[in-house]
This record gives sequence, structure tokens and C-alpha cells, in this order.
Amino acid sequence: MGSIRRKRASPSPQPPRQGIGSKRGLPPGTPVFLGEQKMPLPRLELFAYGPQGLRQQAEASLDDCRAMRRPGSVGWLNVNGIHDIARIEAIADSFALHPMTLEDILNTYQRPKCEEFTDYVFIALKMLDFDEDAQRVETEHVSIVLGTDYVISFLEDEGDVFDGIRERIRLGSGRLRQMGADYLAYCLMDTIVDHYFLAVERIGDRVEVFDERMLSDPREDDIHAIHRFKQQVLALRKASWPMREVTGELHNSDSPLLHEETRVYWRDLHDHTLQVIDMVETTRDILASLHDTYLSSLSNRMNEVMKVLTIIATIFIPLTFIAGVYGMNFENMPELKWREGYRAVWLVMVVVAVSLFAFFRKRRWI
Amino acid sequence: MGSIRRKRASPSPQPPRQGIGSKRGLPPGTPVFLGEQKMPLPRLELFAYGPQGLRQQAEASLDDCRAMRRPGSVGWLNVNGIHDIARIEAIADSFALHPMTLEDILNTYQRPKCEEFTDYVFIALKMLDFDEDAQRVETEHVSIVLGTDYVISFLEDEGDVFDGIRERIRLGSGRLRQMGADYLAYCLMDTIVDHYFLAVERIGDRVEVFDERMLSDPREDDIHAIHRFKQQVLALRKASWPMREVTGELHNSDSPLLHEETRVYWRDLHDHTLQVIDMVETTRDILASLHDTYLSSLSNRMNEVMKVLTIIATIFIPLTFIAGVYGMNFENMPELKWREGYRAVWLVMVVVAVSLFAFFRKRRWI
Amino acid sequence: MGSIRRKRASPSPQPPRQGIGSKRGLPPGTPVFLGEQKMPLPRLELFAYGPQGLRQQAEASLDDCRAMRRPGSVGWLNVNGIHDIARIEAIADSFALHPMTLEDILNTYQRPKCEEFTDYVFIALKMLDFDEDAQRVETEHVSIVLGTDYVISFLEDEGDVFDGIRERIRLGSGRLRQMGADYLAYCLMDTIVDHYFLAVERIGDRVEVFDERMLSDPREDDIHAIHRFKQQVLALRKASWPMREVTGELHNSDSPLLHEETRVYWRDLHDHTLQVIDMVETTRDILASLHDTYLSSLSNRMNEVMKVLTIIATIFIPLTFIAGVYGMNFENMPELKWREGYRAVWLVMVVVAVSLFAFFRKRRWI
Amino acid sequence: MGSIRRKRASPSPQPPRQGIGSKRGLPPGTPVFLGEQKMPLPRLELFAYGPQGLRQQAEASLDDCRAMRRPGSVGWLNVNGIHDIARIEAIADSFALHPMTLEDILNTYQRPKCEEFTDYVFIALKMLDFDEDAQRVETEHVSIVLGTDYVISFLEDEGDVFDGIRERIRLGSGRLRQMGADYLAYCLMDTIVDHYFLAVERIGDRVEVFDERMLSDPREDDIHAIHRFKQQVLALRKASWPMREVTGELHNSDSPLLHEETRVYWRDLHDHTLQVIDMVETTRDILASLHDTYLSSLSNRMNEVMKVLTIIATIFIPLTFIAGVYGMNFENMPELKWREGYRAVWLVMVVVAVSLFAFFRKRRWI
Amino acid sequence: MGSIRRKRASPSPQPPRQGIGSKRGLPPGTPVFLGEQKMPLPRLELFAYGPQGLRQQAEASLDDCRAMRRPGSVGWLNVNGIHDIARIEAIADSFALHPMTLEDILNTYQRPKCEEFTDYVFIALKMLDFDEDAQRVETEHVSIVLGTDYVISFLEDEGDVFDGIRERIRLGSGRLRQMGADYLAYCLMDTIVDHYFLAVERIGDRVEVFDERMLSDPREDDIHAIHRFKQQVLALRKASWPMREVTGELHNSDSPLLHEETRVYWRDLHDHTLQVIDMVETTRDILASLHDTYLSSLSNRMNEVMKVLTIIATIFIPLTFIAGVYGMNFENMPELKWREGYRAVWLVMVVVAVSLFAFFRKRRWI
Repeated sequence: MGSIRRKRASPSPQPPRQGIGSKRGLPPGTPVFLGEQKMPLPRLELFAYGPQGLRQQAEASLDDCRAMRRPGSVGWLNVNGIHDIARIEAIADSFALHPMTLEDILNTYQRPKCEEFTDYVFIALKMLDFDEDAQRVETEHVSIVLGTDYVISFLEDEGDVFDGIRERIRLGSGRLRQMGADYLAYCLMDTIVDHYFLAVERIGDRVEVFDERMLSDPREDDIHAIHRFKQQVLALRKASWPMREVTGELHNSDSPLLHEETRVYWRDLHDHTLQVIDMVETTRDILASLHDTYLSSLSNRMNEVMKVLTIIATIFIPLTFIAGVYGMNFENMPELKWREGYRAVWLVMVVVAVSLFAFFRKRRWI
Repeated sequence: MGSIRRKRASPSPQPPRQGIGSKRGLPPGTPVFLGEQKMPLPRLELFAYGPQGLRQQAEASLDDCRAMRRPGSVGWLNVNGIHDIARIEAIADSFALHPMTLEDILNTYQRPKCEEFTDYVFIALKMLDFDEDAQRVETEHVSIVLGTDYVISFLEDEGDVFDGIRERIRLGSGRLRQMGADYLAYCLMDTIVDHYFLAVERIGDRVEVFDERMLSDPREDDIHAIHRFKQQVLALRKASWPMREVTGELHNSDSPLLHEETRVYWRDLHDHTLQVIDMVETTRDILASLHDTYLSSLSNRMNEVMKVLTIIATIFIPLTFIAGVYGMNFENMPELKWREGYRAVWLVMVVVAVSLFAFFRKRRWI
Repeated sequence: MGSIRRKRASPSPQPPRQGIGSKRGLPPGTPVFLGEQKMPLPRLELFAYGPQGLRQQAEASLDDCRAMRRPGSVGWLNVNGIHDIARIEAIADSFALHPMTLEDILNTYQRPKCEEFTDYVFIALKMLDFDEDAQRVETEHVSIVLGTDYVISFLEDEGDVFDGIRERIRLGSGRLRQMGADYLAYCLMDTIVDHYFLAVERIGDRVEVFDERMLSDPREDDIHAIHRFKQQVLALRKASWPMREVTGELHNSDSPLLHEETRVYWRDLHDHTLQVIDMVETTRDILASLHDTYLSSLSNRMNEVMKVLTIIATIFIPLTFIAGVYGMNFENMPELKWREGYRAVWLVMVVVAVSLFAFFRKRRWI
Repeated sequence: MGSIRRKRASPSPQPPRQGIGSKRGLPPGTPVFLGEQKMPLPRLELFAYGPQGLRQQAEASLDDCRAMRRPGSVGWLNVNGIHDIARIEAIADSFALHPMTLEDILNTYQRPKCEEFTDYVFIALKMLDFDEDAQRVETEHVSIVLGTDYVISFLEDEGDVFDGIRERIRLGSGRLRQMGADYLAYCLMDTIVDHYFLAVERIGDRVEVFDERMLSDPREDDIHAIHRFKQQVLALRKASWPMREVTGELHNSDSPLLHEETRVYWRDLHDHTLQVIDMVETTRDILASLHDTYLSSLSNRMNEVMKVLTIIATIFIPLTFIAGVYGMNFENMPELKWREGYRAVWLVMVVVAVSLFAFFRKRRWI
Repeated sequence: MGSIRRKRASPSPQPPRQGIGSKRGLPPGTPVFLGEQKMPLPRLELFAYGPQGLRQQAEASLDDCRAMRRPGSVGWLNVNGIHDIARIEAIADSFALHPMTLEDILNTYQRPKCEEFTDYVFIALKMLDFDEDAQRVETEHVSIVLGTDYVISFLEDEGDVFDGIRERIRLGSGRLRQMGADYLAYCLMDTIVDHYFLAVERIGDRVEVFDERMLSDPREDDIHAIHRFKQQVLALRKASWPMREVTGELHNSDSPLLHEETRVYWRDLHDHTLQVIDMVETTRDILASLHDTYLSSLSNRMNEVMKVLTIIATIFIPLTFIAGVYGMNFENMPELKWREGYRAVWLVMVVVAVSLFAFFRKRRWI
């Protein structure tokens, strides 16, 4: 709806969109891809790392994925592109994912949520991106599966969002290589939430600029801008409010997959989500106030227009009447024959005009 | 109220509607049909299936129903048409349903709810359908009774909504034939919630089209369209908010009728309901913003009209006055005798008109 | 306030109303009647019934009341009229009611509530009635005291609201004679809540009729109707929201006075109350949307009026100016002497008028 | 802010107001008087009573206060005037009050709250008074300290609010003399809450009168009245919402100072507070609806004014144009020489006027 | 956004602002300073005190800090300026702070929160300051670390906000020197919350003045003032609502670092925060009501302007028409030759004018 569009892959011809309603009638757990295909073929990227070593494959096969789990190391399988059902299904089989999890991975309309299974925790998220050109918030569906010693992330498209994490794994600096799979999952989510800040800040900055401009120079189509801003904020709200539940659940979870030592990180993530929501709500309130201000500026303009009309009309209508009176053709009109009649009429007219002018001055209309 | 109409059976003559208030004064638990009769005679459809076999009857008798419960198999009794009190009462007796349950089955105004009894779980639902022609959301009352080894579903009318489930039972593919009665109940509800998505999406799409059109070309009666949309969204809200409680209760229930292995499905159903509500609320917020935009466009139009009037009037009123002055019939008006008087007056008029024009330009009215 | 008036007894001369603030300064628990006296003398109606027998007295004395409690039978004392403090006090003494209960029975402004004492449960309710003539929701204060083997109901006025229950007790059909005092209390409350449905439905129907009419033919004083509807909905809300707490408490209560077997009935009652609230809130939202629509129709009308004025004025003002120019009396005005001058002016005028007409057509004002 | 003024002592010269921000920088628990001094000197009033006897002192010394606590009797120290820090501090010392309690007693801006200490319960309240002349809700800060066998009440000013309680203690009638200190504290609070009803009712009555008048005869400055009403309702809300927490806490408290037998009274008090809030919120909703109605009546008026202007202008502008045409001075205007020209023009004018009149009739403007 | 600016250090050249989005891609716990540098170099201020003695250093080195912790004394390290990452990191190392804590100290956009670690409690706050000149609420990020026997406070800038506490430590009067580190932390927070009152009061006072002025003399740009006020209130809300959670958590915490004897202080602090929120919300509601009033005053003005126009136009337009009729040049106009024709026309005109005047009087327009 409106500006809550989903990211599009530019070059490929648009395959027919699969709406969320098109799943109707299929048995639950049937793997169906719902959304738009954004890249030609899925790409599997593999990392297996521990404090000591690192194995990395930019284009992994399914067999590589199966071999990734080894004691003492953490495996990260990053899947770019989720429209190839067969492939995703094969991955799900390898890691014994529940059919419902598979369904949620493939459904790009899936609401952010967190589900604990016996062997893994499944997290569905939205990645936000503010498209400067189209002035739209674009969302991408991201799924994260956290097992005992592995993390699988599913993205709709190729992207550079996880570049920082790739770098950190490669360099081996910092905490990442020392810690378990749950820390990796946290890092992925933290990166995504950091993107939320960016989107909120950009919209907030634009609203601020708009606010300044509108107060000093309101324009008629400002309401359209406000409407667009509101839709963008709606998109942000829709993504961030359920996110709060997700991070809250992770923070309070007692799953054995989430270790005590990462708890402080989940808490921090939850905290960041709350801050995103704070910022979104503040922006929303500012927009509401801006809308009120806009409406008032419309009324003020109307008042101004009406005043000009009223002043001009009210001054000249009586004068025109006086002129009309002495334009009558009665034979017996004594004033017309007075020597000073013409000047006297002018005098009367000036007096009337000045009086009306004074009246408007008193009412502060001029 | 408004567009929250209930589905009507087209061919049969309209029997008098029984309003919810007409039950007043009757003892609680009295079986009374409240609603509109939508089909001539109720039809009982019977399925009895297990991993091995399947028995199916499109038109079952009451005795068939009683014989349906056999060890190792799941029975599904689908009742189409609920206005024949005697018949429904006989079914209720066969399965030892509580009188209050019978009352709720017959009351098509019943709010969605979930009640656990010792022997069965009773679920009342609303099926939603968006009628494209009438542009109305239509609701149908659905009741589901889940026993240890049977499910009874009551629909107001014949319908193809459960065709997918019939097919799956027949084919024996998928999980359905392997699992218990609770999974069947889940499948029925999942099908109904999938219909919610469809209704919300259709309204959402219409709102989006309307939004685009209204911003570029607002019309005076757009407010009526917005009012109708709001009523439709109200109907969706009324059906989906109580649904959330129902699915939440089923998800968290510790009834022995709901097995541990189906819990993940109930959770998913709850999740879908939440998503429906998210979509409904987003649509609602967009409508609110559209309404604001509409009001502003009205004000803008008024401003535009007023400006045209003001410009024309303000320019010509002084000119007409000047013309009026020299239309006076005073005998002693020296200007009238000047050779260039007429041209001078034209000059004055042009100067006045241009000045006023420049004034409006400066104020950005033109 | 506004339409939230209390029912009046028509024939008797109006005794001075005792406002809720007039109790100020009195010790708590002092029996004071707060409200309007609605009938000349209180009437005590007595029923004592069991599975086997029934004793009934239309006009009971206090001694009858005291004798009503017998093992194996349920006693129902229905008190019509509560302004006679001495009498009510005597009843309260007979049944050992707490002074605070007595105070609440006499205070017709008492908010709906449910209080458990050691020997009895006290329930304060509002009965709703929609007065078709005055177009007002009228409330009546009802108190119910539920003991181990008796129920006492206090009404402000004589009324036929409990006729159905009287009938059921007399006939001995149905469950009522078989069950305990708590079931009777439930029946009384169920009857009252059924009246809520009626009131909500009537207002809802009127709003629907009004909605249809207003959209097709808005009138200036529609806002007054909307304001009156809003006040009626406020009265409904004020009565039904606290009712939700009452029924919720009864449903979840673990008082020994409420038996396990009636629990399903209390749950159903709670459910009905929720549905009443749903309907009230839907009506409220429709009214809000109607109000918005009304405001827009006002603006649209104004636009229409302005357009007519603008079109007429804008077309004729320039023409009048032209006529004015050639009405000037300059001696040297060459056009006046042209043979075709007059026709030429007409031509100019027609061209100007047509151009302006085309301009308005283009702007879609005509 | 606005009408939420604090009561002023009329005769004494106004000492500088101590704002709540002026405490900044002082150590917590420092006894500072914040507010306006309302009476010259504090007065200590003492009651010591039991089932048997009563001792009473209208002007007690500090030593009297210390001697007030005796076994088997309840002491009530009523302090009128709290600006004399030294005196209040001495009292606090005598009863071993915590420094924070002292600070709260002296701070007239203190929010209503209830705090349990080991030896006593501290309750801060607001007394409400509706000043008929100034049309303002005035609040007074009241503190109550409830010990095992004593109650201390601190008021800002002398007042007759507790006269009823004084009377009851003196007469020895009713429950008061038989019961403990907690019952006395309840009586004090009950008296205060009864004043809330009075204030809410008075404002409610005024709103009702205003409502009736505004609907039949709206005036331009009604918006100011609505604004003032809103501020008064805000003041009521500000006092009553935190009061709900206070009474709720007292009702649910398990402090040994609150005996089981007074629990029903606290519950009743809580109930009254809820009712006050109900009434305040209803008044608020009525005001919101009134404001909408007011805005609509403004628009309606504007419409009416515009219609009159439009009708007059639209009828006469074409006629004036016609008159203008035949006022032109062309030499060759054949119509001017027609014998019936003048009558024909009048006919045309009448036809035009009647047509326009019919047009307005059809549009229902006249 | 808008008036929610952060405090700026005036003399130093503005270093580039580090937005909250600029942290994106960095590993969690990386110490990055986010905000504006407000002073050239951080200053470390050290207090170590006990009941007996006091050691104080205005400019402490890191070694001093390490040596500060001694048995029987409380250490307070006040850090002014947090942009020097290396220095802050060194302090964090000395006190074994968690990397996430360090990150939160450096992030001036951090939302108020309270986190318990095993060795310390971390509290993030916002200090509020109302800048009279810029009419803006300015916020400063404050972090407090409470250990067993030390408190570290981090401020963005030098400031006199803690001068009162410094004084109390120096004088040794009051409770401060006798109590533990948690009491010091409480004192710091209490000082900050006292500043909130000041900011809210100042805005409230301005709103009150504005309210009075606007009601008596509304101006066109008042809407801008209201918009600015709303933004200031938004800033206050943003700071105070999360503060409520912080103080609530501290009040209810069972951390061994928070002693039982300071519990009453935390409760009081929580109470103050609630009061701040009450005041903010009241101000907000008053602003909403003011905005409504402003809009109405706009409409009223428009009505007034329209009335003047309508009265003048409606009176003179018919008169001008009459004059126009007798200005026509028909040869055969009998009235023109009547001796009293001219006076008769004047009479007609006066009658018309008086009638219209009476009409307007009747409608109460004049």
C-alpha cells in the first residue's frame, strides 16, 4: 500500500507477483514462494570459523552446507535469494527444519517473529532501506535460523548489508571469532537494526527540513508531502513494532541456544529497538502537528484572500453607487446644476473611502 | 450497520430476519436460530479417514453421523445450513454438546470465541468474503466443535471454502491423513484465516488505487468512498480482533484435545491472525491520512475559487468605479471637455489594472 | 448529562431529586436514598421454589420474607421501588446485609460492581431502556444479592423485564427449577444484558438509517443528530464497560456461592457483555466517520455556493465594466460615433463571456 | 496552568509563591515549604476518643500532641496551615516521621500517593473545590498520616470540610467511636472524595446547561467557554487519576495498620474514585463532541452568510449589467428609440431575476 | 528534529556531528563517540569521602581514579566531556566495565535505561535544560555507574548542575557523608529530575501566558507558536517517559548494590518522575485544546470578514442597480420626466437599504 513497496530487482523482467492471498487453499507447511523474485539464481555463501581457523566459500554447494557443521567451529550459511523453492527445501531438509519454518522463510510477507523449536530458534525480520530516489521505505524479508553451532540467514537479494560482519570474521579481530553461534545471530540482527536507525534518521531529517520550509513558505501541495511522509512512517512502524516483541522474546528467552554471556547483547538489541520506536513515534507526532499547522496555514491564506476582496469591494461599492446616482437621467436633478456639484461628490467619495479605510485599520485588517 | 451486511442466499425468498434482540426473554440455552436462512435445507457431509482408509458421504443421515466415530479414524461432519433447529439439536444430542454450545451454533451474531468443555473444544468464527459487486465485506458464522476423534463444522451456507481440505483428505497426500482431529480443526481455521488475507488485500488494493487517483484528481464525493472504506475496515476489525483472542487461547491451551505436535501450527495460525490485524490497522491509518488529505484538498479548491473571484473582482471594481465617475451628468465636469480626457481615463485604468495585477503576482496568487 | 437521563415515573408529582453530591458529610454506610422516587410505595414480590413445589406471593410482608428461606428450596425476593429507606433497611437486616451494601442498594448513581461478602455476593447493575419518544437511553439501577439459597433483586420501579423468568418458574419447564440460587441470579442478569442488545441494536439501526439519508441528502442540523447519537452511545458505554468487569469477576470467581455447573453460564454472560461492547464501539466509530463526512459535506456545499457566485460575478463584472466605459460622457469618444460601435461592443462582450465560460469549463467548475 | 489554580487566602498579603522548581539543589528530605501561604499561623486541633470518652482541644500545643497517644483511644491531630516549617518539623519529630514524609507534607505540589512505612502509612491527596465565582477548580494539598492508634491530617488552610466528622466524634453515634484509627482515616478520605463528586457534578451541570444553550443558540465566543471547561476537566483528571492508584493500593494493602474489618470501606472508597473518573471522562467526551458541534455551527453560519451574499449578488449583477448596456452613449443604438424599449428591458430583467430565483429554490438555498 | 536540539558548546569550532546511523557496520561494543564534541578536553573530578574525612581533586589523573576505591569510603568520579574515547576507555578498564556499557556511555543518543551487571548498575539519563533565548529544550546525555563503593558520572560538558551535591559533600552536613554509594547515585539523579520540573514549569508558564494572550487577542502566526510548543513538549515526553521505567526499575530492584534503607528515596524519585510526566501530559492536553481554539478563532475571523463584505455588498448592489436603471438612455422613459422622480428614487433606495439593514439586524449580523 502506498509507499510500503518492496524492493525490486532492476534488471530482470518482472515475474508475476505472488500475493499473500494466493496461498489460500494449500495445505499448511506447503513450501510456496510468496513475493517478487529479485535475482536470477540463489547464491549460497559459507563461513565456518572458530578461534583458530576460518573456512570460507563464496559459492557453496548443498554438500558443502551439509559438511559445514564441525565440532568447535561455528558455521554461517548466508543464502541470497529465496525464490528457488527446491533449493531452499533441500537446505531445510539438511538442517531438519520444520515445514512451518520453511513456509515462513519463503513467505516474504511474513511478519517479524521469533519461534523456538527444540533444535533451533527461528527469527523472521524485515530489513529496511530508504530509497532516496523513490522517496520510499523499502523492506526486505530476512530469516535467521540459529542452531547450536550454526546460523543460517536467508535474504531476498544479494546485498552488502553483512559486509562488516564478513570483514570481522575474516580479520579475526574482536569478539566474534571467540564466541558462539548465538553471538553471530546477534551481530546479524544488530546490523539490521542499525539500518533502521538510518532509515528513521533520514526520514526525520527530511521532515525537519520540510518543517522549516513549510512554516516559512507553505505551499498548496504540502499536504501530499505530509501524506507521503505519513505512509513512510507507517511502514517504519509496521516493521519496528513487531520487532520489539522479537527482541524482547530473545532477551527473556531461556532457550539453551542463547548463552548467558550473550544476554547483555540481546538486552542491548532490545534497547535499540525501543529507541527506534521512540524515534518513529516522535516523527509521527511531529507530522501530526505539521498537518495541523498546514491546515491552519490554508485557513490563514483564505482569510488573507477574503480580506483583500472585502477591503477593495467594500470601499468601491459605495463609491460606485454614488457615481451611479449622478449618472441618472432625471430631468429634475438639482445637484447636477450646482457649480460645485462635481467637486462636492468627489469630496463625499473621499470621505466615504477614508472612513471605510479607518474602519478596516481599526479592525486590524490592513 | 452500513456495509457490515451478512451474506444472502440469492434465489430463496427472504425469510424474516431474526435480530439478536429477539432472543430476549427466552431461557438461556434455548435453541433459537438467529440470522437469515440462506439455503432451503441443511446438508450433512461426512468424512471418516485414517492413515489407511477413507469413507465419504456427501449427504449423510443422522445415523451415519452417530456411526462415524470409530477407533483409529478421524471423523469430520460438515453441516451446511444451520436454520433447521431440530436437525442441529439432534446432532448436538448425538455428540452430547452443552445447550449453551447449541445456542452459540445457532446464533449467527455470536462473537468469535473459544470455549473448552470437558469432552470437546467449541470454536466460533467469522468467515469473511469481499463481495466485489456490492463492495461490501460479508461475514458468515462458522462453528467448529473439536472432540477427541472428530470435528464438526457448521456453516450457514453451502460453500467451496473447504474444497482444498476435501481434496487433501481424498488424495491422502500430505500430513492430514496421518494426524488427529485437532490438525483437521487447525486446517479448517487456517483456510478461513487465509480468506481474511484475501479480503484485507482486496480492500488494501482498492484503497491504494483510490489513494493514487485522489491525490492527482480529487473529487467532491471522494468522502463517501472514504466513509465506505472505513466501514469495511470496521467490519474487518470487528471480525479479526476477537479472532486474535481465539487463536491465542488455542495456542496457549493445555487441553488434552490439542496435542503437543500441533502446537506449532496453532502458533502459526495465531501469527497469521496478528498479521491480518497489522494489515487492517495499516489500512485504517492510511484511510485516516487520506481523509485529512481530502479535507485539505477541499480547502485548497475553495482557496482557488476564492482567488479567481478576488482577482477578477478586485481588478474590475475600481475600473468600473472610474467609468461610473465619468458617466455622471454634472453640467460642470471639466475633464469631460478635455480633448485627451477619454484616452487619459483609459491610461489611468490600465495603470490601476497593472498595479493590481503586480500586487497579486507578488502575493503569488497568479 | 444530556441524554443520559434516568427513567421517570410519569404520574406521580416529581419529588426533589437527590444528587449524588448530597450525601456529602454523612457517615459512610448511612442509608440515604439517592435518586428520583418513581413509584408511590415499594412492592415486595416473593417466590420460593424447588424441583417439586412453588410458593408465590405478589405482595409479601417482611415476615413472609423472613420465612422464605427453607432447606431444599430457592427463595427469590423481588423488591420494586427502593425509595422507602425504612423498608429496605428492614429487609437488609433480615438478611444480615452489610451497611455498605444497603448504601449501594439505595444509591441509584452507584456504578456497576460486584462485591463478595462472606455470606452473599452483591451485584450492582444498570438496566438500559431506549425511549423511542424521547430518543434517549434511560438507565435504571438494579441490585442483586445472591445468598446460598436466596436471591434478592431491587428495582427502582415496577417493570415487566423479569416476566419471562416469572413464567419459567411458574411453568417449571427448563432448567430453572432444578438449579440453585446462582442460576437464578444468572437468569436475572442475562435478561438485563439481553436488554442491552436491544438498546444497542435500536440505536445502531437509527444510525444506519441516518447514515444512508445523510450521505444522499445532508442537512444543516445533522450535526445535532450526530451529537445526540454520540451522547446516547456515551450512555451505553458508561453502562457496559463496568459491566464487563462485573461479569468477568463473576466468571472467574471462586466463591462457594457460585457452583461449578453454572460456570459455563457466567462465561456466556461475560461473552455477551463483550459483544455488547463490540457493538457499542462499532457504532461509535461509525458516528466518528459520519461526523467527518458531515463536515466535508459542509465544505462541499460552501464550495458549490462559492462557485456559483464566482462564475456569475466573474462573467458579469468585466461586461459591466465595458458597458460602464461607453456610458462615460466625454465629448471626444470616437467609438461612440462609429456606425457599428454598438454591435462591436456586443461582440466583445460575447467573446469575453464565452472565454470566461470556457475557462471555468476547463477548471471543471461547471 | 490556566484554571488549575490553587486556593488563595484572600485577606493576607500575598507572600512570594514558591514554585516546585525552587527546591532544586537542596538535599532530598530537606523540609521546604512549597506553595502559597494561606493563613497567618498554623492551628493544631486535637481529638482523642474511644468507645467511652472524648477529649477535644481546638488549639493544642506540641506537648498536647505528644500526650495524645494513649492505649485504648484513637488520637486525631488536625493541622490547619503547613507553611510554618519549624512547627510541622516538630510534629514530625514527635511521631518519628521519615524526612521524606515531612518533605511531602510541605510540598503542596505533591502528587497524590500512598506510601507504607514500618510505623505508619502516609497518604497525600488533593481536595477539590469548585469556585463558582471564578469558575475554577481549586485544589488544596492534604496529607494524612495513619499510625497504629492515631491519625494526623495536614491541611493548607482552615476549612469546614471535616465538620461532619467532628460532629460524629462528638455525638458518639454511629460506628466511628467504636472503630480504630484506620476507620478515621477512611472517613477523612471519604469526605474528600465526596467533594470530588460535588465538583464533577457542578461542572457536569454547567456543561449540560451550556450544551442545551449552544445547540439552540450558538455564539462566537462559545469556544472560549469550551476551552475553560476543558481546562477544568483537566484539573479534575489530574487529581482523580492518581487518586485511583492511592485507593487501589489501600484496598489491596496487607499492612497491619489496615484491619480486615475496614477492608470493605476501602473497597467502597476505591469504587467511588472509579465512579468519579467515569463521570470526569464522560464529561470530557461530551466536551469533545460539543467542540465538534461548535465547529460545525461556525461552518453553517459561514454557509448561511455566503448564501445570502451569493443570492443577492447573483440576482442583481446581471440586471445591473443590462442597465449598464442601455446606459451606453453610442449614437447608433436602435433599441433606445423603440417605443416599448424601456418596458421590454424591464421584462427581460424580471425574467432573469425570476429564473435565478427559481434556480436557487431548486438548489434549496432559499 | 525541530526543537529537540542538543546542547552546543559555544566557543569551540563545530566538529562534524556523528549521527546515530554512523555506527552502522561496526562490531557491537566498539567504543565510538556519537554526538557533538562540547568541550576541548575531558576533565576528571574526584571525591572520596566517608563519615570522617574527605579527599577532593578537581583535576584527577587516571591513577588517582584507580586509587580512589578504599574501604570505608565512597568514591565519586565525575567525568566532564566524553568525546575522548581513549580516556573513557581507560576509565572503563579500570573499573572493569562491560564493553556494552562503554558503548552506551559514549553514545549521546542513548535512550534512558537502567542495566544491572554483576558488579555495578549502569544508568543512562537525559538532563533537560530549557534555553530561554532559543526557546528550545536542550538535552544532555548523562551516564551513571554505581558500584559497591563508588559512583562514576559521565557528563557531555562542564556544568554547575551538581554544585549542590559538591557543597553537601564538602560541608559534611546532612545525610550524604553518612550513607553509601547508592545514596550518592540517588542524589545525582534527584538533582537531574529536579531540573525536569524546572523545564516543565517554564514551558507550562509560557503556555499559560500564551493561552491568556491568545484568547483575548489571537494572531495569525499563533499556530507557529503552538507548533513550537508541541515540539518542546515532545522533547520533554521523549526524555521523561523512559525515565519512568528507569526509576521504576531502580525502585523495585533487588540488586545488593541498592540497600534497603535507600529504597524510600528511590520510591520518591520514581514518584517525582511520575509527577513530571503528569505535568507534561497536562501541558500537552492544554496545547491540544489551544490548537482547537486557535482554529475556531480563524473561522470566526473569516465569518466576521465575510459578514462585513456581505452587508456592504448586499445593501449597495440593489441600490446601484436602481441607479443604473435610471441611467439608461431610452427615449421613452416616463419616470425621468416626473417632477418628483428623482426624490421618489431616493425614497425607494432608502426603503431598500433600511429593509436590508433590518434583515441583517434580525439575523444578528450587525
